[in-house]
Amino acid sequence: MVHRVPPPRERDARHARPARLRDLSPLSRVRAAATSRRALVRTEILTTAAELFRARGYRATTLDDLARRLGMSKATVYGHFRSKEDLLAAIFHRTMTLAEAGLAAIRASGLPPAEQLREVIRHHVRLVVAERAFLTVFFSEEGSLPARLQKDIVRRKARYDRTVRAIVERAARAGEVRVAEPRLLVLALLGMSNWVYRWYHPGRGRAWDADTIAEGFIDLVERGYLATPAARGREVGRRLHRLEAEIRALRPLLRGLNRP
Amino acid sequence: MVHRVPPPRERDARHARPARLRDLSPLSRVRAAATSRRALVRTEILTTAAELFRARGYRATTLDDLARRLGMSKATVYGHFRSKEDLLAAIFHRTMTLAEAGLAAIRASGLPPAEQLREVIRHHVRLVVAERAFLTVFFSEEGSLPARLQKDIVRRKARYDRTVRAIVERAARAGEVRVAEPRLLVLALLGMSNWVYRWYHPGRGRAWDADTIAEGFIDLVERGYLATPAARGREVGRRLHRLEAEIRALRPLLRGLNRP
Repeated sequence: MVHRVPPPRERDARHARPARLRDLSPLSRVRAAATSRRALVRTEILTTAAELFRARGYRATTLDDLARRLGMSKATVYGHFRSKEDLLAAIFHRTMTLAEAGLAAIRASGLPPAEQLREVIRHHVRLVVAERAFLTVFFSEEGSLPARLQKDIVRRKARYDRTVRAIVERAARAGEVRVAEPRLLVLALLGMSNWVYRWYHPGRGRAWDADTIAEGFIDLVERGYLATPAARGREVGRRLHRLEAEIRALRPLLRGLNRP
Repeated sequence: MVHRVPPPRERDARHARPARLRDLSPLSRVRAAATSRRALVRTEILTTAAELFRARGYRATTLDDLARRLGMSKATVYGHFRSKEDLLAAIFHRTMTLAEAGLAAIRASGLPPAEQLREVIRHHVRLVVAERAFLTVFFSEEGSLPARLQKDIVRRKARYDRTVRAIVERAARAGEVRVAEPRLLVLALLGMSNWVYRWYHPGRGRAWDADTIAEGFIDLVERGYLATPAARGREVGRRLHRLEAEIRALRPLLRGLNRP
């Protein structure tokens, strides 16, 4: 709703990136620094809101709770977000944008499709681990979104899944992966990776980092857990070794036969 | 909370199973049929509550909504459940009990561990597909449970995961599966299977049935999607075939050498 056309202050904040500061007049620099500070406050509010929604649920959290946690007045919060719903919309928008940006970078990488698929798994696990609060709200509160925005998110998610499926299909055409149902493979990979948001608790017990989790998943889905093929491979290796030895042993026997 | 010690009416309902009816006096039979009807009404209320909580969320659903959907008075609903929280508790209890019962049957099956692991995937996918409303509430509303019951569910889930891990470890010891981190494998398998509750919509588009989904997952996690090992296998096969042909071709050459 709110985020289809960014409000003017967001456009300002975007223009206020450090790379652009050099070209600005002193007054513009002050203004740009102010909008940049504004963008920082906005991010802080959003991050804290995501954390509260994650811990207590969207409906159970009030803007009073949020202002108290931030040590801000409610008026300051309202200066950035018009309503709790506006905050929820921004959380969904940011999460979807992060996911899409990562996927776009993977597609633009020029890597072979099977390597791109690996990157998709890494991207998801890293995103879930780094932005756990955002992802938890994203996966839990879709029903709390207003209908129009919910439709928008469903559409973006479907496009996202189709993009991943296109990678799978390219990998299959290139003979890199075998796949009976590309859509089912995509749902399996993303399901496994997204589910991390439910069990990943940094600081509780010994925690794996995102890359350890991702590499474990990649090894599983690429090679499978069944010991048989590897064991068979070793067996073939052993027999070939024996065969080599037999052939080598034949050579001295043949020497005498080479004489005219 | 409510379900650690079942209330008397639940114990009655349990005793009213058809298998026991034969032994009862006529008066007892009437009573048993009444408690059996009672159990049916209870199940109907619970199923409809799960459906409403799934569609609208637990907090947004009122007991008025539920009574209206059921075409019952609120008093009738209260005759079975003391509160909305009591309903939520019963949904969690039933879901966890179904999951545990299936897992216990798998462990008692005497199947080899790798086959048991396959059965665990089938069990999860079937449960999610058959009881989508219950599973959706189970996966979405844990935060709405009262603290004591939440702790109880966390404990039961942890025990469940440990049981699956024990199957993985037996399969690894038997040399049936290769696994670096049994816990990560369990989280990957259950995550992929549980995630089905988010994308499975019976009647929307062409829908796979539970067993098609489960077999697709099993094929993926057992053999992996990478074409390379199979392709390598084919290459080894081709070369062995050539080697066989060479060896066969040697034989006639050797014939003349066998003469004394």
